[in-house]
Amino acid sequence: MSSSDIFIGETIGTAILILLGGGVCAAVTLKASKAREAGWLAITFGWGFAVLTAVYTSAPLSGAHLNPAVTLALAIKSGDWSNVPVYWAGQFLGAAIGATLVWVAYYGQFHAHLTDKEIVGGPGAQATAAKAVEAQEKGAGPVLGIFSTGPEIRVVWQNLATEIIGTIVLVLAVLTQGLNDSGKGLGTLGALITALVVVGIGLSLGGPTGYAINPARDLGPRIAHALLPLPNKGGSDWGYAWIPVVGPLIGGAIAAGIYNVAFA
Amino acid sequence: MSSSDIFIGETIGTAILILLGGGVCAAVTLKASKAREAGWLAITFGWGFAVLTAVYTSAPLSGAHLNPAVTLALAIKSGDWSNVPVYWAGQFLGAAIGATLVWVAYYGQFHAHLTDKEIVGGPGAQATAAKAVEAQEKGAGPVLGIFSTGPEIRVVWQNLATEIIGTIVLVLAVLTQGLNDSGKGLGTLGALITALVVVGIGLSLGGPTGYAINPARDLGPRIAHALLPLPNKGGSDWGYAWIPVVGPLIGGAIAAGIYNVAFA
Amino acid sequence: MSSSDIFIGETIGTAILILLGGGVCAAVTLKASKAREAGWLAITFGWGFAVLTAVYTSAPLSGAHLNPAVTLALAIKSGDWSNVPVYWAGQFLGAAIGATLVWVAYYGQFHAHLTDKEIVGGPGAQATAAKAVEAQEKGAGPVLGIFSTGPEIRVVWQNLATEIIGTIVLVLAVLTQGLNDSGKGLGTLGALITALVVVGIGLSLGGPTGYAINPARDLGPRIAHALLPLPNKGGSDWGYAWIPVVGPLIGGAIAAGIYNVAFA
Amino acid sequence: MSSSDIFIGETIGTAILILLGGGVCAAVTLKASKAREAGWLAITFGWGFAVLTAVYTSAPLSGAHLNPAVTLALAIKSGDWSNVPVYWAGQFLGAAIGATLVWVAYYGQFHAHLTDKEIVGGPGAQATAAKAVEAQEKGAGPVLGIFSTGPEIRVVWQNLATEIIGTIVLVLAVLTQGLNDSGKGLGTLGALITALVVVGIGLSLGGPTGYAINPARDLGPRIAHALLPLPNKGGSDWGYAWIPVVGPLIGGAIAAGIYNVAFA
Repeated sequence: MSSSDIFIGETIGTAILILLGGGVCAAVTLKASKAREAGWLAITFGWGFAVLTAVYTSAPLSGAHLNPAVTLALAIKSGDWSNVPVYWAGQFLGAAIGATLVWVAYYGQFHAHLTDKEIVGGPGAQATAAKAVEAQEKGAGPVLGIFSTGPEIRVVWQNLATEIIGTIVLVLAVLTQGLNDSGKGLGTLGALITALVVVGIGLSLGGPTGYAINPARDLGPRIAHALLPLPNKGGSDWGYAWIPVVGPLIGGAIAAGIYNVAFA
Repeated sequence: MSSSDIFIGETIGTAILILLGGGVCAAVTLKASKAREAGWLAITFGWGFAVLTAVYTSAPLSGAHLNPAVTLALAIKSGDWSNVPVYWAGQFLGAAIGATLVWVAYYGQFHAHLTDKEIVGGPGAQATAAKAVEAQEKGAGPVLGIFSTGPEIRVVWQNLATEIIGTIVLVLAVLTQGLNDSGKGLGTLGALITALVVVGIGLSLGGPTGYAINPARDLGPRIAHALLPLPNKGGSDWGYAWIPVVGPLIGGAIAAGIYNVAFA
Repeated sequence: MSSSDIFIGETIGTAILILLGGGVCAAVTLKASKAREAGWLAITFGWGFAVLTAVYTSAPLSGAHLNPAVTLALAIKSGDWSNVPVYWAGQFLGAAIGATLVWVAYYGQFHAHLTDKEIVGGPGAQATAAKAVEAQEKGAGPVLGIFSTGPEIRVVWQNLATEIIGTIVLVLAVLTQGLNDSGKGLGTLGALITALVVVGIGLSLGGPTGYAINPARDLGPRIAHALLPLPNKGGSDWGYAWIPVVGPLIGGAIAAGIYNVAFA
Repeated sequence: MSSSDIFIGETIGTAILILLGGGVCAAVTLKASKAREAGWLAITFGWGFAVLTAVYTSAPLSGAHLNPAVTLALAIKSGDWSNVPVYWAGQFLGAAIGATLVWVAYYGQFHAHLTDKEIVGGPGAQATAAKAVEAQEKGAGPVLGIFSTGPEIRVVWQNLATEIIGTIVLVLAVLTQGLNDSGKGLGTLGALITALVVVGIGLSLGGPTGYAINPARDLGPRIAHALLPLPNKGGSDWGYAWIPVVGPLIGGAIAAGIYNVAFA
């Protein structure tokens, strides 16, 4: 693969991933959406089919890493680090583009949601002005959740541990693909399996932190949240931002280590 | 493929697509249906498995486009426009047949739903006569939603943008199939992937407009809605009808352009 | 395939089909079940994975028809009627065995449900004694629904039409399998596609009658319902019993005709 | 396969199985989880994708039994018992590790849940102190349910019968894999089919006992529940513990017998 194919593939693929992944969060969260309050199963299947669509579409160009932790693990596994910067650049650019496309597709819904004072405090809540201010100060309102993850209980070691564990599971499944599919790497079945593994991680390990398990998936859209002209959007919770970046990278490295010791 | 195989395949395939796709909307919407209020996840999986069944059944005859935007994109990709009229004719005919079959299968449910004044205004609503009249004038009641799509917030540029974005995702996934599946085009796995991509688009991008992403899927059933002898059915919302036709065609053309630049 | 392999395969396969299919209805309906009121999506996926498990397990022995309408259609398609009686015998025997196994697995739940007068009239209902008697007279209470299908609106032509339409969709998908999967017939992927097609038919066409689309699936368990020593079970609704037998057979024959004209 | 590969593969695989399977129960049950009360469909799909991830990841090392009943059935089928102890040792060790990882990933959620007296008695219950004591004495509160299964109605013969029936279905599907997939055993498609069969068993047969269908899945986490320092955790219900061990082993043996008589 040429560097330009990798860059274009990762940019397109990660843009699709975040467009559909952020999209399902917007669909379930925002006012005036047909999918409003469709529930956690809708969110986890939505993210899983986002992975399916993104991997399937970009695999012919770049092999569809779409996740800096996957790129890191594959570099550790193979010892070849030459393309890491190109992969990472495409992933973060694509994630920011995807988040912006969510904003375009749900433009009216964002506006209706954020300018209706009654719902700033969250779905179902009779938010008072005080609550709205509090939500802004925390930067942890439901609209930020369309872009980035946040913990239910904010404890650094546990939040980090949950992201590490989730990423180990994801990356082990990606790394064993070569052993299961005759060495062909990510093809049609690989995309399907990876997608359903991600649904599984979401259902099982998404409860505490919202399963970033991918630094680009969290940081790219968080930057978009900070830059986009959304009314009353509150802060972007930069204090938490390092955990869904560092946790998945640690998890990816551990998974590569496990793979090299036990499977190689 | 012969022209008659294409025409018959697209007619059968699109009829199955709309029978099952419109069927799930009827099942979830109408009174006296066992699936009533089964939710958005049921609707999106229902449409996805409608795609699966329709593509799988018609692929051996016509290659299973079942969508004028897909036919347009494949013509742009290949430069071969000779069969476009046959594909489009089969697609629109099949869509109208499928919508009529939904009416047959749910005949009693349509009648019970539309002749019960309490529910004309929508599920759960204590509709007054005024509301019923209003629903008829708008032509945007829940029964039209069994046939065609409609926006939650009616803003031309956003509605068009959402349909364009959704169709780009769909058509890119269809166009990269040849690169993933050894050039065999739509077979069993291709049908499955396309179906799950459509579930994903529904979950993630269906919130604002109901994801037509297919001109035949929207216009064929809208014509059927206008012609079928449904009591109190209200208008067919012709003012919106051009958006789910033009948006998907633009999206298909853009996707073909992206494919020819980045993937070919 | 030998006659004994066919008979054993169809018996085992249809027993698994009805054990899991009837099982999910018991799980969602009965008191003291962890899955109680899990909803229509649970029922349709449950029946789909029942098809998957049953087809996958019995395909190596009998080719996994598991449905007299499928056997009829394949006989029309091939012109070979010699094994039809063996297939049909295995299917009806297996269905009755499967329904009996549901009764064993949910024994305590059936007893708790049927001997609690408050709930005889249906989930959530504050049934009076009068209602309970009425439910028995109609023979259409929720416990019969664990065994056999019944219509929401009882109109012969529509009930028959809905079953015919649903079966045409199912059988067309089964018949085109040979064209999609290199003529290998029902293997792993075929089982998966058939299962998801059945989920789709359930979601989209199950609303009016509960989608029997298989004479053995309905009649075998109805006989079991009539014979099993369930307290307060009410009648077995024999007046409706012919529709889910005749409708699917007509649908299978029509699908075979369509196949022979358009696809062969 | 070497003994060490088998041991490592079964340990890793069963750890992933229980991490994700126990994880989805924690996610749906515990306070301060984003997935709280996501429902039975979430639990059954979560366990299914736990199987998918675990089988896919460990199949290249050990063939991915991950279940003593599967190991028993394969030994009966093949007559080769030499590796049974290694498989079983890895399975129980992995299960205990997986349950411990659930505790780590949901640490704050367990603490918040168990130290809030209002909810000790179960979700939605206004538990009095008496109820909390009662829950402890029974050892059947919702937190034990994150680790091990328990019956809705406690009747030994039915609980045993339900586990036997469920395991027969699972193991028959595993044993027929070799007949469906060209003798290649568990690969990508095999993992997917097994996963969806487990979703099906959960939906259809999980209502009465919670479908252990695997001795390691139940006993390993039950030991972890007994040992982990969870506050107010109540007893581990050792009186029931033998049923989800003995039932699945009987079911596996019966399935192997059916296979050897009907399929071999």
